[in-house]
Amino acid sequence: MTTLLTTVDVAKIVAVHGLPEMHRRLVAYLEADFRRWPEFDKTARTAAHSPVGVIELMPVANASEYSFKFVNGHPGNTKHGLSTVMAFGALADVETGLPTLLSELTITTAIRTAATSVMAAKLLARKNSKVMALIGNGAQSEFQALAFHHLLGIEEVRLFDVDAAATDKLAVNLAAAAPALRVRFCASTRDAVRGADIVTTVTADKANAVIVDADMLEPGMHVNAVGGDCPGKTELAAQVLECAKVYVEFEPQSRIEGELQQMPADFAVTELWRVLTREAEGRTSDTEITVFDSVGFALEDYSALRLLRDCAAELRLGRSIDLVPRMDDPKDLFGHLMGTAAARKAA
Amino acid sequence: MTTLLTTVDVAKIVAVHGLPEMHRRLVAYLEADFRRWPEFDKTARTAAHSPVGVIELMPVANASEYSFKFVNGHPGNTKHGLSTVMAFGALADVETGLPTLLSELTITTAIRTAATSVMAAKLLARKNSKVMALIGNGAQSEFQALAFHHLLGIEEVRLFDVDAAATDKLAVNLAAAAPALRVRFCASTRDAVRGADIVTTVTADKANAVIVDADMLEPGMHVNAVGGDCPGKTELAAQVLECAKVYVEFEPQSRIEGELQQMPADFAVTELWRVLTREAEGRTSDTEITVFDSVGFALEDYSALRLLRDCAAELRLGRSIDLVPRMDDPKDLFGHLMGTAAARKAA
Repeated sequence: MTTLLTTVDVAKIVAVHGLPEMHRRLVAYLEADFRRWPEFDKTARTAAHSPVGVIELMPVANASEYSFKFVNGHPGNTKHGLSTVMAFGALADVETGLPTLLSELTITTAIRTAATSVMAAKLLARKNSKVMALIGNGAQSEFQALAFHHLLGIEEVRLFDVDAAATDKLAVNLAAAAPALRVRFCASTRDAVRGADIVTTVTADKANAVIVDADMLEPGMHVNAVGGDCPGKTELAAQVLECAKVYVEFEPQSRIEGELQQMPADFAVTELWRVLTREAEGRTSDTEITVFDSVGFALEDYSALRLLRDCAAELRLGRSIDLVPRMDDPKDLFGHLMGTAAARKAA
Repeated sequence: MTTLLTTVDVAKIVAVHGLPEMHRRLVAYLEADFRRWPEFDKTARTAAHSPVGVIELMPVANASEYSFKFVNGHPGNTKHGLSTVMAFGALADVETGLPTLLSELTITTAIRTAATSVMAAKLLARKNSKVMALIGNGAQSEFQALAFHHLLGIEEVRLFDVDAAATDKLAVNLAAAAPALRVRFCASTRDAVRGADIVTTVTADKANAVIVDADMLEPGMHVNAVGGDCPGKTELAAQVLECAKVYVEFEPQSRIEGELQQMPADFAVTELWRVLTREAEGRTSDTEITVFDSVGFALEDYSALRLLRDCAAELRLGRSIDLVPRMDDPKDLFGHLMGTAAARKAA
């Protein structure tokens, strides 16, 4: 049997543990999985592009477990009352191929993306960073703000979005969820970025945009670039990358999808897992500029699915569904089908 | 909302329509989709290999719909009471990325593989073929035998499997399902193939096996080679391909996974859709030998998912599941989550 977790199940998990604890646990799962990076069979995700968006499949496996995520990116969706990003995914046993867990991943993707940003910022941002600019105030922005507030000690967020209603929504949500977090409304990206320790960009437009330009940068800044994540969708000026130390998740995928798509093929980057395992350096001074060119990698969804499975087991959530047949004789699929069919017809 | 179809729902569909009608309808859906082949965004499936099996993702899309299948292949599974092949998949709207249907595809894969074999044999086998050798009598064999009996007029099947119990199971099932179909037990593949009009191989071993050798071939035979479908898993001697006209589904994938993996990169093959659209020739004489080097292509699963959706709608089967959130304000995923979480906590 396969366990199904719906959006309602995942909301229940968050209700019981609270979002700060979910983010905290997931960072621990992510760090554990990124430390054993070489054990995983990794591949750049497959993407089906259309004029209005993209649909992707993100598989990853180690010797015992396989996972994949289905995820879309449609910036125009909010006009039709749908999320820009929707996702679901599964875990399967490598030994047998049996799918063991099928889960919603829309809510979960927002949690895991923020947790991944925190994992990177722990390695790359200046110690005692207190102020974060947050450019793009859509569906993922609360998760970024709260994860950085609770886990990294950010005390002030400086908000900007071309859609003022989105910023208002974010401010209201943050006031309720984290009263101690100071919120500043800013008139422009430039205004928001000025004086920030960390600059988080999480905009939705599928365009080669310049959200952050090089002349906005200040010594010691860490740029957490989340929104540029597919060909033709970037947020940073190329000059930002040129004057920074750039970190990525899985280099072959980031070359295609990340801010990195703007740079020559030999532009130097460091995979984040190497910093975690101390094979490479993170930040080494309080003046250098660091960029986490985040696109979202399948391993992060594997970590998130592991966490959901563990939480669901603890809380006895989810229900079993007949996604694959359970048969007395596995070579007799036909007999099983006819038996089930006859039983249904008689019922 | 996303509609979920379980194995029980699909068994019910088969119970209502009967397997011959399901095969007949699916051949029509397949032919319609293969005829509009150039409209689809096609890619070879991604495969995660382990020492005991493979797990694959098979996406395909046109301008309006996206589909994918998750499927494994683990020949040792039957020893643990599990199917060799288990599968599920989904349909999504290209315009929004919304997943509209999530369905079991284990039973359905057996139906669609047989229907695809029939579609090919209609183009490639000799008219008035009456006798089919069926080598490999496992989970898919009944579907092949019955589809060829009902749709192509096969009157006799000649069975062989290294596992005699599998052959006994097949014979019992066929006697019940199709009393008019003559069944012959054969002592070897060579014995089964002798005098057959069509030779269907559907064995499970992940090995470069020689199930059919060139000296077993007779003029005019059509070989329906189904079991060789991943690197290191073949059923035909290379010499069989050398003396035949070879047809494939999607050439780039078949070069990697099919019998074709044994041949030079420039070995000539014809994609099946070109025969359907009359851009290429199928069989042109009663003496030539034809091979359908079937590996299973994503478009076939799209056709099958379309059919399931239509049947489920007709019969009002399936249930809605909260696989993705339904939100009043799609930019307020956080507010939605907290609202749902609070409601669940209060409940």
